[in-house]
Amino acid sequence: MAPLIEPRVLKGFRDFLPAAEIKRRQLTEIIEQSFRSFGFVPIDTPALEYTEILLGKGGGETEKQVYRFKDHGDRDVALRFDLTVPFARFMAEHRAELPLPFKRYHIAKVWRGENTQRGRYREFTQCDFDIVGSESSGADFEILLMMRETLQAIGVGDVTIRMNHRGVFNRFLRCLGIEDKSVEILRTVDKLIKIGKESTLLQLSELIGTEKAESVLQYIQPKNTYKETLAAMTEAAGGPGPDTERLEVLYRFMEDAGIADIFVLDPSITRGLDYYTGVVYETFLNDLPEIGSVCSGGRYDNLAALYSKEQLPGVGASIGLDRLIAALEALGRTQARPGYAQVAIACTDETLQGKYQALALELRRAGIACEVFTEPKKLTQQYALAEKKGARWVIVCPEDAFTREPYRFTLRELATRTDTEGLTISDIISTTIA
Amino acid sequence: MAPLIEPRVLKGFRDFLPAAEIKRRQLTEIIEQSFRSFGFVPIDTPALEYTEILLGKGGGETEKQVYRFKDHGDRDVALRFDLTVPFARFMAEHRAELPLPFKRYHIAKVWRGENTQRGRYREFTQCDFDIVGSESSGADFEILLMMRETLQAIGVGDVTIRMNHRGVFNRFLRCLGIEDKSVEILRTVDKLIKIGKESTLLQLSELIGTEKAESVLQYIQPKNTYKETLAAMTEAAGGPGPDTERLEVLYRFMEDAGIADIFVLDPSITRGLDYYTGVVYETFLNDLPEIGSVCSGGRYDNLAALYSKEQLPGVGASIGLDRLIAALEALGRTQARPGYAQVAIACTDETLQGKYQALALELRRAGIACEVFTEPKKLTQQYALAEKKGARWVIVCPEDAFTREPYRFTLRELATRTDTEGLTISDIISTTIA
Repeated sequence: MAPLIEPRVLKGFRDFLPAAEIKRRQLTEIIEQSFRSFGFVPIDTPALEYTEILLGKGGGETEKQVYRFKDHGDRDVALRFDLTVPFARFMAEHRAELPLPFKRYHIAKVWRGENTQRGRYREFTQCDFDIVGSESSGADFEILLMMRETLQAIGVGDVTIRMNHRGVFNRFLRCLGIEDKSVEILRTVDKLIKIGKESTLLQLSELIGTEKAESVLQYIQPKNTYKETLAAMTEAAGGPGPDTERLEVLYRFMEDAGIADIFVLDPSITRGLDYYTGVVYETFLNDLPEIGSVCSGGRYDNLAALYSKEQLPGVGASIGLDRLIAALEALGRTQARPGYAQVAIACTDETLQGKYQALALELRRAGIACEVFTEPKKLTQQYALAEKKGARWVIVCPEDAFTREPYRFTLRELATRTDTEGLTISDIISTTIA
Repeated sequence: MAPLIEPRVLKGFRDFLPAAEIKRRQLTEIIEQSFRSFGFVPIDTPALEYTEILLGKGGGETEKQVYRFKDHGDRDVALRFDLTVPFARFMAEHRAELPLPFKRYHIAKVWRGENTQRGRYREFTQCDFDIVGSESSGADFEILLMMRETLQAIGVGDVTIRMNHRGVFNRFLRCLGIEDKSVEILRTVDKLIKIGKESTLLQLSELIGTEKAESVLQYIQPKNTYKETLAAMTEAAGGPGPDTERLEVLYRFMEDAGIADIFVLDPSITRGLDYYTGVVYETFLNDLPEIGSVCSGGRYDNLAALYSKEQLPGVGASIGLDRLIAALEALGRTQARPGYAQVAIACTDETLQGKYQALALELRRAGIACEVFTEPKKLTQQYALAEKKGARWVIVCPEDAFTREPYRFTLRELATRTDTEGLTISDIISTTIA
């Protein structure tokens, strides 16, 4: 006999056992339901694409992390590392088939060969939603509202959404005469929460001198209210512009929709080196801000510039499902449900499996999930198994159950360990239906 | 400016635009609902595994088709090409954490570098469901019943499930003294539908001589009824055995559950060179049998033999989602739904987006999916867009809509082009709720 192969998964990859997978599905189902309630539609794209498509811009961290290889036809291919690049390619390819503005969501796995020592996974799920083909403030606002509504639907409504506008920041840097260093400044400011104020000041000073570094630090400090911060930003940027007007309009929309309280205008939010050009935002759980943003996004000028001459402005955000689940678990807010069956039918006589299933079908057709046990073990063992699987009830068929109609059964409620005898199927349905 | 990159997907891979993706999701949601109603639970496994795990047995067609490469850590890795091998590895690894019998489903994508000229895709979705850790006929029967119930839920209840037992076939070959050629015989018989009776006879004759070839062909011909076929098979196999008894018991279960009419005992069904050892089955749509089996499976002795010493018998089946969708489309049985929003709110004044969204939230909270349009186009264009997106209603806010409470709106029914004026939000909810 050949030696056994050790059963194991690759580092950074995970199996999802039923309890974990049920939890993930509950969440994605709620998220998807929320997206749909806004009229967003799903798309899907291949896991594998031409490397040229995925790494178009090339360079940097991403290239090192991507799973890339030659396929059977010697094509240079790679696994998608996010859902944005495939979406850009998708829009360039299918633009003519889609009514604009196009509102889509995409919930799918992506792969990155990241350093797993930082607690990162190499396979994880992203939930992206975007409105493409609109420059309107209404689209910006809808994405912000969806973030709030979706998180609330999941049970983490107590959030702060910190937002900013890339354009104001750029104008501010121009006023200081340091716009040529904007990339390095953005990169440094983006680390503020991680490295703290003093280190940030130090790094900025090396870059642009102490005085200007202090101006930058002062600029990125939010004031007491959205409006005060906006006034300070406007002044620092050399006066009003389309960018500050957009922030003003968005605030009015928030007030009109009665949700202004969860938004903070925070000039330190820059989304690092992302491709955003307009509003940007990050979402923090008020009970667990240290876990980082669970939903981030922003507005971009041109989604598909690499693949199409046509300008495609848009706005979108992404929920990091794995981080969100980690947060929910840390907060004790996940309900672990071991299974779906509400009712189990005990097996007391193997020859009756056809009858058991006929009985189960009637329950299933009434909307009651029902598992039939197939092994004639002791009843106590079957009760224990049913409990383990999350069922509330067990039906036991007495020896003469199927001898005369209407068939009569015993129903055990597991929590109370009480048996009720002589019940018909319709009695059982009315008792066990949720 | 850099030249544009041509937006395209790899050969054999597909984008799913909203209408196609919505259709896929509707189907998988129904399938999943059906699986859950039987108490089956979901699992998930990595898309990428050690090649050693996936190709354990090595050799053959599979090895040539698998996407295999070296990762960043120089590990030999591959994309899963089915859900059975990862499930075997999963069971060997997590056996101790799972109550047996374990009933799981797994709906996920798999990848094979197949020849696309045969109309095959290189990325496709499988829906697998298995009961592991049970040798009982009840488990065999449950999988058969699930196949029927699930296909019925999808709207293709008019099926014939053709079943057989590998053991009876093997005994029959032994009686003829040709069990040493069973692999070649199985392979030939499996092609019967494709190559026809005469070619099969010819090929079998070359293998085992004309006389025995004719016996084989006669053996694999179903008789008039399940019972008659079973009687003929039993005789040809040298009398009753555990295999023919299993087929007999299963028939009684079918009768007890009132579903015997859709099952045909068909000794020509062998499932080729699969790893099955007991009952095997294939499912054909009565209106489109030529498309081939849409759901196949069977019983196996030992799922995880490559990775574990522990014997894990089980039974399972797999729905080929892509073939099923092709069949539904050929039969004209898919409902193309372009989107989820039932109601659209027209944008007649961009500055009112906050109010529009507040109105939309009330509808969404009442369970009505509602899209807010963000561009202030002509109303006729907005009606056309709403229709294109599959909405039934459009809310138009008159200029003075938000000046005094209760706010009043105009509701347009798109199909009849009728407008009703002066409706409050609750009027609209009661009109548009499904």
